[in-house]
Amino acid sequence: MREVAIIGVGMNKWGELWEKSLRDIYVEAALAAIKDAGVDTVDGMYVGAMTPGLFVGQEHIGSLFADYLGIKNLPTTRVESACASGGVALKSAFLEIASGFSDIVIAGGVEKMTDCSGDDATYALATAADQEYEAFHGATFPGLYAMMARRHMHEYGTTQEQLAHVAVKNHKNGSKNPNAQYPFEVTVDGVLNSVMVADPLHILDCSPITDGAACVVMADLETAKKICKKPIVKVLGFGHATDAIALHSRKSLTRLDATILAAERAYKMAGKKPEDIDFAEVHDCFTIAEIMVIEDLGFFEKGKGGTGAESGETHIGGRIPINPSGGLKSKGHPVGATGVAQAIEVTKQLRGEAGDRQIKGAKTALTQNMGGSGGSTVVHIMEVL
Amino acid sequence: MREVAIIGVGMNKWGELWEKSLRDIYVEAALAAIKDAGVDTVDGMYVGAMTPGLFVGQEHIGSLFADYLGIKNLPTTRVESACASGGVALKSAFLEIASGFSDIVIAGGVEKMTDCSGDDATYALATAADQEYEAFHGATFPGLYAMMARRHMHEYGTTQEQLAHVAVKNHKNGSKNPNAQYPFEVTVDGVLNSVMVADPLHILDCSPITDGAACVVMADLETAKKICKKPIVKVLGFGHATDAIALHSRKSLTRLDATILAAERAYKMAGKKPEDIDFAEVHDCFTIAEIMVIEDLGFFEKGKGGTGAESGETHIGGRIPINPSGGLKSKGHPVGATGVAQAIEVTKQLRGEAGDRQIKGAKTALTQNMGGSGGSTVVHIMEVL
Repeated sequence: MREVAIIGVGMNKWGELWEKSLRDIYVEAALAAIKDAGVDTVDGMYVGAMTPGLFVGQEHIGSLFADYLGIKNLPTTRVESACASGGVALKSAFLEIASGFSDIVIAGGVEKMTDCSGDDATYALATAADQEYEAFHGATFPGLYAMMARRHMHEYGTTQEQLAHVAVKNHKNGSKNPNAQYPFEVTVDGVLNSVMVADPLHILDCSPITDGAACVVMADLETAKKICKKPIVKVLGFGHATDAIALHSRKSLTRLDATILAAERAYKMAGKKPEDIDFAEVHDCFTIAEIMVIEDLGFFEKGKGGTGAESGETHIGGRIPINPSGGLKSKGHPVGATGVAQAIEVTKQLRGEAGDRQIKGAKTALTQNMGGSGGSTVVHIMEVL
Repeated sequence: MREVAIIGVGMNKWGELWEKSLRDIYVEAALAAIKDAGVDTVDGMYVGAMTPGLFVGQEHIGSLFADYLGIKNLPTTRVESACASGGVALKSAFLEIASGFSDIVIAGGVEKMTDCSGDDATYALATAADQEYEAFHGATFPGLYAMMARRHMHEYGTTQEQLAHVAVKNHKNGSKNPNAQYPFEVTVDGVLNSVMVADPLHILDCSPITDGAACVVMADLETAKKICKKPIVKVLGFGHATDAIALHSRKSLTRLDATILAAERAYKMAGKKPEDIDFAEVHDCFTIAEIMVIEDLGFFEKGKGGTGAESGETHIGGRIPINPSGGLKSKGHPVGATGVAQAIEVTKQLRGEAGDRQIKGAKTALTQNMGGSGGSTVVHIMEVL
């Protein structure tokens, strides 16, 4: 397999983008990535999106976006794995380049969620759960993650304050990210006194509904070395794994097997261990998710993830900074775009372009992008050359 | 890139499968393909599906199917390009194997369409058109293809009888296919006297609404040679191209540029020409589509496609048999599964397993799978070793 690198990145300021359509949002991010890469054209494109059919009545978006991007007849495939759709877009672009079939490929992601009513958006998101055994009976994602949080509290003594500290840290990071949807700080008391959505999760434990897109341009390492004027970010490896999408079908409510296995595969392919990673962007769709994920990635002992944000270990400047971008929590969570935006943050950090939220001296980073309540996970490990 | 072959195939009898759920239908086809291949497990899976979110409220189907298939933690990605979703599943599996990342990968496709009301299914299908400029204003696929048909009749003198002959031929072929949804014969008069859907297209010019799945197991050629007890069907090449999904954005209503370009790319990669192809499975979502496609693939001069079925040239036993399986018209069109089912028919024919519809001595075949009104096309060329 050929080696693969990220040579350009682009995204919008995320938020409620009512004045822009789905295609406008995607094309904006893709053009920014192409400009950043300094290329004229690309050989292929993968677009991660969870459910544009339910959100805005539009499927067949690969062809639509290629057309509006002005790259006539570009082979483009939309890929989906619920909220891990961005992660599978990165993996798909990697494999197309690694095979030698293409040299330069865009991996993008997008979702336009705010054109729906709140009820409709909740229904659309619930299609990432098991429709026949969960969603049909009224289960929603706040409810599913609330059960996971309650069980984690029961088994390991994790506290509501520790959950709140994740939100506080991520909003602090996001307040320094000009692309974040909610770039404001929150306090532990603010989180604990915010409205309860699904006990023990308050609204400030939940990531928001967001419109946004994110794109990276990837190339084989040889082409990257010829083209790239900025530091080259090499993709050392990835891991992809699935699990039962229904929570009741898993052996444990507090262990994310797809994340554990995807991480094992990525560490093996990259020749790295958890202690080699300088920082990570992880899937904090709810504060409890970040706590479980940093355990399952091997950064914290099982059950101790709650101490990460509380102790400062996962803050910028701490032992293992988590979500310097602000994470899904503050930056926003347009589901299909999230996995790609994680790669953008990693690229910016590793190039030293992260401004006020820059992690000094970071060389190696990891992204973890998760679908549904953990039914799929894609992990990537990148290093600056 | 490594060479790739098809080593196993499986599908259901297609139809209105009300007693089976989406997951049941897919798992049935996947298990049949695994059994046919004679393997115990696989390294990855791609599932083509257009819009299970709109049809049955279920996204995240890659993980769901891997779980119900009993292959724990299998890396699985759902891919979509409207009605060409099956074609992009084949391409994605090809690239994963060609790269050397995986040895054995399932390319599958599925759709469960009959749980919807007719209106809801028409809305779901219309999301493959441009929502903002076509679907929102009431355009549906019968209407869009009717415009293409009317223009083809105006430019080239194609007749309603020639359209009807496509349906007659495909139903004749389908009557010999035990998996076809509508395995009965029709007559030219029967087509012309059937209810008008969108002038000049009668209901017997249109492919049906179908539940069904189709899966193939693919492997690198070296592994295939070790495992395969049946004749090995090598994938010589593929081509993938997109076009504007909105009909009004194209230069011609009677030329399918994505098909022309995908075919050029596939012929080049395979080292073949139209005259080297012994038969083809093409995307006859409407009778006019088959006529335009066989022109754009280079089997007939532009404007002469209407003579194919009428003269007998595209019949089994003719110069270039088209859709020996019965095509979308008679076999059915569960949109995400269609492109994979084309590869199944090719494999069965090339192995000599096609029973009463066997094309004698066929060595080399082509599949053409198309999204929407031609906004995306994937062409594959296969040869038996």
